[in-house]
Amino acid sequence: MKKTGRVTIPTDSSYVEGTKEILKKWGADAVRDCDGTKLPENPRELADKVYETYFVARGDVAWAKSHPEELQHFFLLSDRVTAVGNAVRIEPAKGYFAEQVKPDVSADALRWWQVYDRTSGKVHSDWVLEENGVSVLVKNAHPYHEYTVSFLAHNVWDSTQMYNYITNGWNTDKHSPYDPRYPLTREHIKASLKIWLETHPDINVVRFTTFLYHFFLVFNEEGKEKIVDWFGYNTSVSPRALDDFEKAYGYKLTAEDFVDEGYYNSPHRVPKKAFSDYMDFIQRYVAETVKELVEIVHSYGREAMMFLGDSWIGTEPYGKYFPSIGLDAVVGSVGGGVTVRMLSDMPGLRYVEGRMLPYFFPDTFFDGNEENAVAELNKNWMTARRAMMRSPLDRIGFGGYLSLAAKFPKFIARAGEICDEFREIYDSVKGKKPFNALKVGMLNSWGKIRSWQCFMTAHELWYQQAYSYQGILEALSGLPVDVSFISFEDVKAGALDALDAVINAGDAYTAWSGGENWLDEELQEKVRAFVARGGGFIGVGEPTACAKNGRFFQLADVLGVDEEKGLSLNTDKYNINAIKAHFIFEDTPVPDYGEDKKNVYALEKAQVLKIDFSDRFTRKVNVGEVKAAVNEYGAGRSFYITGLPYSFENARLLYRALLWVSKKEEYVCKIFSTNSKVDCHYYEESGKYALVNNLATAQETVFYDADGREKKISLAPMEIRWIGENR
Amino acid sequence: MKKTGRVTIPTDSSYVEGTKEILKKWGADAVRDCDGTKLPENPRELADKVYETYFVARGDVAWAKSHPEELQHFFLLSDRVTAVGNAVRIEPAKGYFAEQVKPDVSADALRWWQVYDRTSGKVHSDWVLEENGVSVLVKNAHPYHEYTVSFLAHNVWDSTQMYNYITNGWNTDKHSPYDPRYPLTREHIKASLKIWLETHPDINVVRFTTFLYHFFLVFNEEGKEKIVDWFGYNTSVSPRALDDFEKAYGYKLTAEDFVDEGYYNSPHRVPKKAFSDYMDFIQRYVAETVKELVEIVHSYGREAMMFLGDSWIGTEPYGKYFPSIGLDAVVGSVGGGVTVRMLSDMPGLRYVEGRMLPYFFPDTFFDGNEENAVAELNKNWMTARRAMMRSPLDRIGFGGYLSLAAKFPKFIARAGEICDEFREIYDSVKGKKPFNALKVGMLNSWGKIRSWQCFMTAHELWYQQAYSYQGILEALSGLPVDVSFISFEDVKAGALDALDAVINAGDAYTAWSGGENWLDEELQEKVRAFVARGGGFIGVGEPTACAKNGRFFQLADVLGVDEEKGLSLNTDKYNINAIKAHFIFEDTPVPDYGEDKKNVYALEKAQVLKIDFSDRFTRKVNVGEVKAAVNEYGAGRSFYITGLPYSFENARLLYRALLWVSKKEEYVCKIFSTNSKVDCHYYEESGKYALVNNLATAQETVFYDADGREKKISLAPMEIRWIGENR
Repeated sequence: MKKTGRVTIPTDSSYVEGTKEILKKWGADAVRDCDGTKLPENPRELADKVYETYFVARGDVAWAKSHPEELQHFFLLSDRVTAVGNAVRIEPAKGYFAEQVKPDVSADALRWWQVYDRTSGKVHSDWVLEENGVSVLVKNAHPYHEYTVSFLAHNVWDSTQMYNYITNGWNTDKHSPYDPRYPLTREHIKASLKIWLETHPDINVVRFTTFLYHFFLVFNEEGKEKIVDWFGYNTSVSPRALDDFEKAYGYKLTAEDFVDEGYYNSPHRVPKKAFSDYMDFIQRYVAETVKELVEIVHSYGREAMMFLGDSWIGTEPYGKYFPSIGLDAVVGSVGGGVTVRMLSDMPGLRYVEGRMLPYFFPDTFFDGNEENAVAELNKNWMTARRAMMRSPLDRIGFGGYLSLAAKFPKFIARAGEICDEFREIYDSVKGKKPFNALKVGMLNSWGKIRSWQCFMTAHELWYQQAYSYQGILEALSGLPVDVSFISFEDVKAGALDALDAVINAGDAYTAWSGGENWLDEELQEKVRAFVARGGGFIGVGEPTACAKNGRFFQLADVLGVDEEKGLSLNTDKYNINAIKAHFIFEDTPVPDYGEDKKNVYALEKAQVLKIDFSDRFTRKVNVGEVKAAVNEYGAGRSFYITGLPYSFENARLLYRALLWVSKKEEYVCKIFSTNSKVDCHYYEESGKYALVNNLATAQETVFYDADGREKKISLAPMEIRWIGENR
Repeated sequence: MKKTGRVTIPTDSSYVEGTKEILKKWGADAVRDCDGTKLPENPRELADKVYETYFVARGDVAWAKSHPEELQHFFLLSDRVTAVGNAVRIEPAKGYFAEQVKPDVSADALRWWQVYDRTSGKVHSDWVLEENGVSVLVKNAHPYHEYTVSFLAHNVWDSTQMYNYITNGWNTDKHSPYDPRYPLTREHIKASLKIWLETHPDINVVRFTTFLYHFFLVFNEEGKEKIVDWFGYNTSVSPRALDDFEKAYGYKLTAEDFVDEGYYNSPHRVPKKAFSDYMDFIQRYVAETVKELVEIVHSYGREAMMFLGDSWIGTEPYGKYFPSIGLDAVVGSVGGGVTVRMLSDMPGLRYVEGRMLPYFFPDTFFDGNEENAVAELNKNWMTARRAMMRSPLDRIGFGGYLSLAAKFPKFIARAGEICDEFREIYDSVKGKKPFNALKVGMLNSWGKIRSWQCFMTAHELWYQQAYSYQGILEALSGLPVDVSFISFEDVKAGALDALDAVINAGDAYTAWSGGENWLDEELQEKVRAFVARGGGFIGVGEPTACAKNGRFFQLADVLGVDEEKGLSLNTDKYNINAIKAHFIFEDTPVPDYGEDKKNVYALEKAQVLKIDFSDRFTRKVNVGEVKAAVNEYGAGRSFYITGLPYSFENARLLYRALLWVSKKEEYVCKIFSTNSKVDCHYYEESGKYALVNNLATAQETVFYDADGREKKISLAPMEIRWIGENR
């Protein structure tokens, strides 16, 4: 008896019969539209659930055209221009895409413009606007100082539509986003939604794509991406928002609070108070506004689903105000375990859905590419599945043109198997707390609000400076540990009391490692006390780094390592003998350190686990690069490693490190699979174990149950083996 | 007719006849004693010049024993000890060598001790001494803060003697250095010198080894080197010196001004005002004191020679007070071109002498090792010779046991050839300004006082964090460019006006790159103006680095590159296409970047010359590691490279870079050798060219004369070919 449901497929008015077949094959219960497709007539005859995309703050071209003063804004920074003489002319919008960026030179906007002397770091007040904003003349400039103009501009083309338009050569009306902070627009978006609901009776799931403010994405003069920040709040700004902020928070923001020296409050920056306050301000506003929209949807008996992306700014699913919105569901794309957990751990929703890969688009679904399409599907599924064993999504779905996928019968068959396997996992795992060996906190400047969102810039993109840390999250997404995300403030409020171990990872002076937060004495005391009393500490890259008081790693005493920044070369380093074997590296003798770190050395009391001696170094005495070390600190333990990109072996390494620092080493002989490509999960409530082969090849492993009984097990490619009586 | 002179050999009372033979073979005119040897009777019958080692502030064991209160001091820092409760006990001298370090617990010394809370970075005043200084009890401590004791200790064993004693298993009386800042000792050292001169009538060169204060070298509890700083002023301190300082400079120093968070004012640290003032204070004192000794030597009709090392602290040959000492000569060891120039460029001396390698010690001169000894001699000679072609030493010499060298006839013969070649170079080059294509300034926090002493910690030792920059100096030591060393203060005073190009090199936040100096607006203005008007700028590693105002490299606009520290990942970097060929890399297509730097990217306007795409990166878009780039800035040019360890090819690369940034590219067709292993020098005054084969293999090159006429030349191994009519 085949189970059905929990699966969404794209459909198209020109592919109704095919849709029916695949609905049946995959047991799907929902259909959705897709960019460039239209839903069939009477879609409810096809499926229980019918989704359609809905835009709140864009799409009504007439409204945008007739209300230019209510279009959205962002703060942008001009190029840095050097004054050669005593005056310098700057074109604020030079380098930006003219079809997206229109400097706002209204009196209301101009009062927010700022000229900065970037050499002195000070505001420069002597300037005039020229040619209606084409240029700014900076007067009484200091020769050979660099100047910038921070300016408010209208964002006259929605970034996602612009991207699709340019990439796909579309030729539709351009969507200018309008700002509901202006009363006319605010009323309009509500009225429009009502009309839409009335005119779309067949749609029972309104798939908001998304709400009010797009993440920060601005293009350059060639129409290519110039700045992208999936977390950027920059499009939510307006003269009105700035005035409202001042009323609510009692102080005035400036352009500099947004352009932030040109960093635009990247999530990698340690957040400043003004930006944190502004985020709070926008979150409250977005929650209040969207709540009204959701209530309208509910009043029509429909479900409100949020797409996690595009104009999602201010919703902050892990923030304080999100549950108050009252959404039914969130849907987001799934690129791996981290994105699964980002969705599946979200609080206060009836269900979450993951959009799987590949998209049914011609770049994958072309003649002769069926094997690759299936391989991509399997890869996406297996990385997502690893996390779902810990915390399952409620639904999965696909996007694109179903008719394209239908041309690949092997793909259709395999996707059907996956839908079945997904439902099987859901039934076995959902609501049944899986076994966790320990509780670990990811410690950084953001804490909970960036749960499963650390080290990210553009969503799901690979960054050289991030992947060696991102691997920690990908590993954690499928490990049998209870993960929480805590901030430095949380630590001071006692958050460590509930944890077995804490991880601090990242490059120096980023929000992730924490930068100047580590100069906070109370923070240092709390972390030291936690470890001294038996807690575990794991540092990756440049943990606790902030040069001060004779240390680069502020908790070098806990970590047992510090980084030689060239200032203490006068001090001999003798701790350069790595031990041959250690519990932590038993399954990963040759780890991948990713981008790695140079110049790390061990303090005398630490135990070096891995050290590099390159050819250059072996010629010399006492020179080596510590790559991993452990340290005992009071009753606690720490582990340091230079980088930890994701691999099965590194995930295993992290698990072993967590067990070691928490003194729970017995869990390599309990609820454990010796083969690092095979995960072992245990659901106490049901008494079931799952052994999950994460590879497309057969695997052997030794399985230890909760009582430590071992058994050799062979697994078929990609197999999940359920073990236990109550299946 | 064989020339003679300018060569010093070691001799020994047991090897008189052999000495005579080698004096003749090498044309030597001076003999010297050596550690563990005694000069023969009537040494003046052997040679014109007779050197003997003289110790000023150590060696008189009886004096040291009878004046324990006048022994030398240093400031040391204890271990960092964590308070678990409200009190913590620290043993100040724990971890130090008890035979060297005796904490001074006299009332006069104790007033300089400091307890620091290293977590808060503040002095902690609530502490008591226990067990006569064995420990310090820190009271009212803050749990989980780290505490240290900074303490004055007597340095009861001269570091060099201690090293030799331990290394060679000597069993002599231990030398405790005494401090001439105390009046009895001051009178004693003068009186002793007079007696010595009277009792040593045959010695006509007093080889001071050296004067008052040893460079900072302290050993650990196992009798191994713990901290070494060839430039460390720490042994010159005493309660009396600190009081004198306060009288002279109007403010009081503290222990922290010396221990400096544990960095001990390493030369890699950006110097603070207190330390700069203290250096000045000690230099004045050393100059005044040593001047009196030199005058005594002169009053006896002898020459005063300083050994550059050991107790040389405060002499500062490139400092303000050195010429006032009135020394006749300096002798120092020669490890390569940099040490040659460090000696040969010293101002105000009658002559400088270089002690060549290898030493005639059993570690090299053992049976069957003759080839290696000759190879070492040739290598040392060729690296030194390269610099001597620019600025020759006045004398060379050897050290060790002559009888050992005499057992290797090939070595004796080759050393004789080298002595001849040295004299030939001296006669051809001395006083004849060689051709310089341009004037370049090495710009850092120290300037002139650290001429040819940049990037050093222990003298001549290799450091992982330094060699990629040290290579610049080694290259410059033999390049046809006029090198000066300038500080940031010099730049503000107009030093760039006299230069064609400037080099700023080093790791971020070190004294070499300059750290916070680069936030000085006037400095930025001067350098920008210099380049904009046509000057050249070369940056290596992390030039001008100091995170502020949206830049990591403060002069990113001049350099055309900046470093991605993980904070601006939201900004796309498109400038990733390196040009295929460039003038700078023509002779060095595949340079050695040494330690290299990651994360460097090019600004839009720069031209990338070298970029790396590792396997990891090629999978991704727009990710690459810029290794070298050029930029046009106004009328000037800049060149950036991530590292520049020494090699012939990298030296050539640097020369080409200097020519390019100075717009003097014509000098690759003038006074030039196309083969980078062959140097070309030109002495306008004599009209002579020298082509120098730096390798022990034959080389071909194309030689361009000053008029651009080219000629193919074949050179024998190691040959110098002199070309020109007036030879």
